[in-house]
Amino acid sequence: MTSPNVTFLPDKVTVTVEPGANVLETAMRAGIHINASCGGDGVCGKCLVILEEGDLDSPKTTHINDQDYDAGYRQACKAWIQKDVTIRIPVESQFSAAALNRIRPGVNASREAREFTAEDLNASGWFDPPYVKRLVRVDPPEPGDNISDLKRLISHLKSQYDVHNLQVDFKAIKTLATVVRDGGFETSVTLAYPPSFVEEPEKAKISLTDVQPGDHTQANYALAVDIGTTTVYVQLLDMNTGAVLDTAADFNRQISYGEDVISRIIFAGKKDGQRKMQDLVVGTINGLIEKIIKRKKLDADDITMITAAGNTTMTQLFLGVEPTYIRLAPYVPTANYYPPIRAQGLGLNVSEHVMVNVFPAVSSYVGGDIVSGILASGVYRDPRLTLYIDIGTNGEIVVGNQDWLACAACSAGPAFEGGGVKFGMRATSGAIEDFNLNPTSLEPMILTVEMKKPKGICGSGLINTVAVLFEMGLINEQGKFERDLGSDRIRPGDDGWEYVLSWAGDNQLGRDIVLTEVDIDNFMRAKGAMYAGYQTLLENVGLDIRDLDRVIIAGGFGRYINLEKSIMVGLLPEMDLDKFTFIGNGSLIGARLACLSNPLRKQVAKIEGNMTNFELSEVHNFMDYYIASQFFPHTRREFFPKTMERIQISRQLVRQGR
Amino acid sequence: MTSPNVTFLPDKVTVTVEPGANVLETAMRAGIHINASCGGDGVCGKCLVILEEGDLDSPKTTHINDQDYDAGYRQACKAWIQKDVTIRIPVESQFSAAALNRIRPGVNASREAREFTAEDLNASGWFDPPYVKRLVRVDPPEPGDNISDLKRLISHLKSQYDVHNLQVDFKAIKTLATVVRDGGFETSVTLAYPPSFVEEPEKAKISLTDVQPGDHTQANYALAVDIGTTTVYVQLLDMNTGAVLDTAADFNRQISYGEDVISRIIFAGKKDGQRKMQDLVVGTINGLIEKIIKRKKLDADDITMITAAGNTTMTQLFLGVEPTYIRLAPYVPTANYYPPIRAQGLGLNVSEHVMVNVFPAVSSYVGGDIVSGILASGVYRDPRLTLYIDIGTNGEIVVGNQDWLACAACSAGPAFEGGGVKFGMRATSGAIEDFNLNPTSLEPMILTVEMKKPKGICGSGLINTVAVLFEMGLINEQGKFERDLGSDRIRPGDDGWEYVLSWAGDNQLGRDIVLTEVDIDNFMRAKGAMYAGYQTLLENVGLDIRDLDRVIIAGGFGRYINLEKSIMVGLLPEMDLDKFTFIGNGSLIGARLACLSNPLRKQVAKIEGNMTNFELSEVHNFMDYYIASQFFPHTRREFFPKTMERIQISRQLVRQGR
Repeated sequence: MTSPNVTFLPDKVTVTVEPGANVLETAMRAGIHINASCGGDGVCGKCLVILEEGDLDSPKTTHINDQDYDAGYRQACKAWIQKDVTIRIPVESQFSAAALNRIRPGVNASREAREFTAEDLNASGWFDPPYVKRLVRVDPPEPGDNISDLKRLISHLKSQYDVHNLQVDFKAIKTLATVVRDGGFETSVTLAYPPSFVEEPEKAKISLTDVQPGDHTQANYALAVDIGTTTVYVQLLDMNTGAVLDTAADFNRQISYGEDVISRIIFAGKKDGQRKMQDLVVGTINGLIEKIIKRKKLDADDITMITAAGNTTMTQLFLGVEPTYIRLAPYVPTANYYPPIRAQGLGLNVSEHVMVNVFPAVSSYVGGDIVSGILASGVYRDPRLTLYIDIGTNGEIVVGNQDWLACAACSAGPAFEGGGVKFGMRATSGAIEDFNLNPTSLEPMILTVEMKKPKGICGSGLINTVAVLFEMGLINEQGKFERDLGSDRIRPGDDGWEYVLSWAGDNQLGRDIVLTEVDIDNFMRAKGAMYAGYQTLLENVGLDIRDLDRVIIAGGFGRYINLEKSIMVGLLPEMDLDKFTFIGNGSLIGARLACLSNPLRKQVAKIEGNMTNFELSEVHNFMDYYIASQFFPHTRREFFPKTMERIQISRQLVRQGR
Repeated sequence: MTSPNVTFLPDKVTVTVEPGANVLETAMRAGIHINASCGGDGVCGKCLVILEEGDLDSPKTTHINDQDYDAGYRQACKAWIQKDVTIRIPVESQFSAAALNRIRPGVNASREAREFTAEDLNASGWFDPPYVKRLVRVDPPEPGDNISDLKRLISHLKSQYDVHNLQVDFKAIKTLATVVRDGGFETSVTLAYPPSFVEEPEKAKISLTDVQPGDHTQANYALAVDIGTTTVYVQLLDMNTGAVLDTAADFNRQISYGEDVISRIIFAGKKDGQRKMQDLVVGTINGLIEKIIKRKKLDADDITMITAAGNTTMTQLFLGVEPTYIRLAPYVPTANYYPPIRAQGLGLNVSEHVMVNVFPAVSSYVGGDIVSGILASGVYRDPRLTLYIDIGTNGEIVVGNQDWLACAACSAGPAFEGGGVKFGMRATSGAIEDFNLNPTSLEPMILTVEMKKPKGICGSGLINTVAVLFEMGLINEQGKFERDLGSDRIRPGDDGWEYVLSWAGDNQLGRDIVLTEVDIDNFMRAKGAMYAGYQTLLENVGLDIRDLDRVIIAGGFGRYINLEKSIMVGLLPEMDLDKFTFIGNGSLIGARLACLSNPLRKQVAKIEGNMTNFELSEVHNFMDYYIASQFFPHTRREFFPKTMERIQISRQLVRQGR
């Protein structure tokens, strides 16, 4: 199926979309303003457009009478594009964005970085999984040839596959006598090399970790696990081909005991709390493993290894390692590296032979998820000066290239996750996630998650809303509202001045959803902390933000942010948009690579060892940078030249429009 | 206290004894015959002696009236020697053994081989235990110095003790944060090197296995465990000094399910049988550990390692490894070597960090207990051609020296353990264990275990009885009774002819205890199988039994056998008695050495690797040797020249006596 083009009139903006794209959403992405108050739920009826040419998949709605429908009127939020089409935005809801679009090229970075596929791994020579299965055929013992089962197996393994420097796990010996006989003296053996991130692989022995009766060599699976504070991912990998066979995700069950790592650590400090925290996350992972096993109809014994990555707190809670000192100054993790750990010992429902490899942490707040992400992104082997960021309550920042890596954790506060914001919420159904503005009427165009009537605003929605309000001059550089614009949406409220995002009648709450100056202050602190973090790390190696060659954005939150708008507010540094990459769940990708590639596993210790950790609170100039960042986009306007230019043009156009 | 001398008249035999020695027992050991029918229980009243000079600790008994007591009559079984004394054997119970004593020097081998003491180990340079504790003091973390607890510990460990090539067990990391703080940043770390018998120690990493708060370096204990089919021993060792601090023993609780390994394997084949067998032996060991911990008031966490040795079946049952194929031809054990195994995983009540090292087995019937005994005895590093034997239902035989080792298991049958013998019993209270004969009256002198009225006859009693009866001509070379000696003790019975060891009135059973020709046949098979085993191993390397330089006798049963009498019946090869050594529990000694000496641990793989196993049933000439052995002492009289000479003299004296 080819991708249809949609042309918006009168601006003559044409964009190519995937079949089935929603008209309102497409207009939002293209920078075309259509008034929309209900987030795309269809209830406000404001987002009318006219079908000029071609066809739309658009039912008649209660907001359109027969005559108007025949005349081509459609409700944008209830219209989907299947083939080439031309759509006119009616004057009553149209805002001439053509000029703005000239400076907003509508190009966003690739939403996903190119991940290593099985083919890529093969092409690079990196596909070389740490566990392989070999079929060993032996002659049955007989009088005069009655050496032990294990000696017989090993001698044939050596002669058939030239395996030396072998050690044998006790778990593989336990059932050996039965296994070799059940298989008619054909046995599949699982070999591990090298054993872990910790040891130097060259010196490591090859371990015989499992034996299975008969030929199981075609079934050799690994699980990559990303233990997020919010979401846990489990991915099933075929270690024979490198293919991703399945991925399952679920909320981390620990969430019931606190949204962030700090509240989890505090809970863990209570009686049996640590055990409870471990049980919850292990239970989450077990649920996902069970789902995958069922879905893929696996023999659970064919799961051979697990690689897990998570932040330092998630890692310690998963392993049952006392987390208290992560929270208390001077913020000491128990360990950086962990040896491979028996999965059953942690409570995971897999076979006895399965070991879990956990990614090493750099510090209490730069954890294995970031090390994994650096492995996945390849920053450590690229000459370009790269900023790698994972934006969130605990924002992690890495700067560096193939020669050096510096990192820091950045306590941005919960604004990006909807915390500290009056109507803040997680990015679930009904959360305002995108925003545009009719500068004439100051009427908004809002899109919500799942296009349901608004319930609140999520982190990405906050960035987009603040960016547009600032760009169009509704809020100033200090984050305060312009009070004399003559809109009833800008008004004094309980927390100072505020902007009404959604009137009570258009939303699910039945009261006005507003954005307050206090919300904007909290957001300012969050975005400023991140930016000050980038500056601090770069400054400490004698560089500044303009030396960056590229930015890689990782993480669940990063996946949804709009680059231009994030630059507009000074959350991201100003750079050409094609220098930004969204890597998605870098932690999961890195865990996957570690399951599939010994050459890449070898890099993990090197990466962790090269990452110089900065405690920002201990770096003298961080606070200066932070204070300088409490401005839109930033007090140092020279870092945002194009942004400043655009603001000027935008505000000029807005003034012309009014 | 000095050791008193006791002189027996009229033979003028003087022996030195420990204070408190029993007169009847002493006479037996000295070859002085005193009629005694009740095993030393005091009830038969036959063992009267006359105190001639000095004094005895001897109460008046119901069998002696006042007048006789005043005249010096004493009951030998109720008389104990405290100082020099002269005792006359009255004519009615005396047998002139003086001439016999000239050819029976009364010299037995040392009852215990010289074991390595802590001092010996130190003197030899071999005291070098595989686990050491080090006290590591670190500065508390502070802002600007907040590396992980583990990194801090390791860096101080390296700088304070020059420890490199380190790996860290997960169990040591788990509690680390709490431990270092509880100890005020003084931490005792336990280091293991090398990890096991399996790996080449030179290549092995040093493992950090445990951390304890504060200074525990003075408390570093190992447990040596001997898992016998009958008896389990646990010995507590001080790894700082090499001292043996305690030893505890108990019957293996598996005994309830069968006396020998075969019946245990059969039981293990039943539903849950294997688990039950494991639970029972682990329960036995746990009971002993608990006893030692209580007795020595230990902190259980200060037990650092366990080394265990047992035969192949005991080892596999202990580890929960399927034992079925040990019993079925061609008798295949699952493995020779096992890696170190987490003790808690086996169910042992010790700390989580404790690993069990089990001695490797050579074959299904030459197990880790024998490898351990070879380590203990030093056969593998001595130029002398040595026969090492452990006599029992499953007799194990090793022949060799520093250059080579050959071994075999010998299915001797249960005669040595009282099986297949009409009144056979284990060497428990009331078992006839020593025997002499008045050749005139053919009246016996019997001694029982604990000197209680007889209940039966044990293995060593059987050897001694058969030997004396044969030497004195009551049974012939084929093991048949001489029927025309005119004693009512020699009579036809249900199982052919028999000798009455104890009349119904003198014993606990209330019926005559007899030794039958069938019993003697079974005994002949047992002793012959052992001897044929020695011959077969020697023959296979081009040697014969006369090339042996020495014999080392190991095991619980061996401890109690009489060398001269064992040679007399052809169980042991004829050699000078000073070339025999009783090593006692070689398996336990070897396990102890492995706990205390890395240089000796290194030898274990070498010993096992050098031991060439022979399946006697597969060796063509074994059966010939076996048939030739069905004779007292042996068909090849040239192997028993002194024995033949002695039999001739004895029988001549006996004939003169009658």
